[in-house]
Amino acid sequence: MNMIKVSATSRTAAVAGAIAGIVREHHRAEVQAIGAGAVNQAVKALVLATGYLRLDGIHVSCVPEFADVTIEDKVRTAIRLVVEPEYSPNNSEAS
Amino acid sequence: MNMIKVSATSRTAAVAGAIAGIVREHHRAEVQAIGAGAVNQAVKALVLATGYLRLDGIHVSCVPEFADVTIEDKVRTAIRLVVEPEYSPNNSEAS
Repeated sequence: MNMIKVSATSRTAAVAGAIAGIVREHHRAEVQAIGAGAVNQAVKALVLATGYLRLDGIHVSCVPEFADVTIEDKVRTAIRLVVEPEYSPNNSEAS
Repeated sequence: MNMIKVSATSRTAAVAGAIAGIVREHHRAEVQAIGAGAVNQAVKALVLATGYLRLDGIHVSCVPEFADVTIEDKVRTAIRLVVEPEYSPNNSEAS
């Protein structure tokens, strides 16, 4: 399970480290956030993680999508950021 | 100038249309947002734009970055989402 759940109070550096670690190991990470504060933290963490991974020669990009999640019997719309190495002839880490 | 500035009150459908139009024409768009509400609107718009473009066979991904912008003599940190077609053998629209 490569899903990282982010809240408005998540520490960006911790989330960034988690994203980078999962991408290094599994070549794909998913970051889920519900609400503006959480989405903002998730995107900031992704900026940091992108920088960490670039130092390792791994160039990632993300595709955002909506996801319906049920929390305490209520359906809410989450933002899910799917993070993967870019496919590129110059990116030796891309599969 | 392919920069789209998004605020917390921007309509996501309008921003999504702008992103899709600029990517179709210029193969690259930048979406800038300052603050959690604006970042949330920008990401939601990007989900919609990704769907619009996918219908045209254009598969985009984004790389987020920080950018310092000066507004009324104050430096603020913006989030900038760089949106480009993914490089892929199956993506005829990618350059």
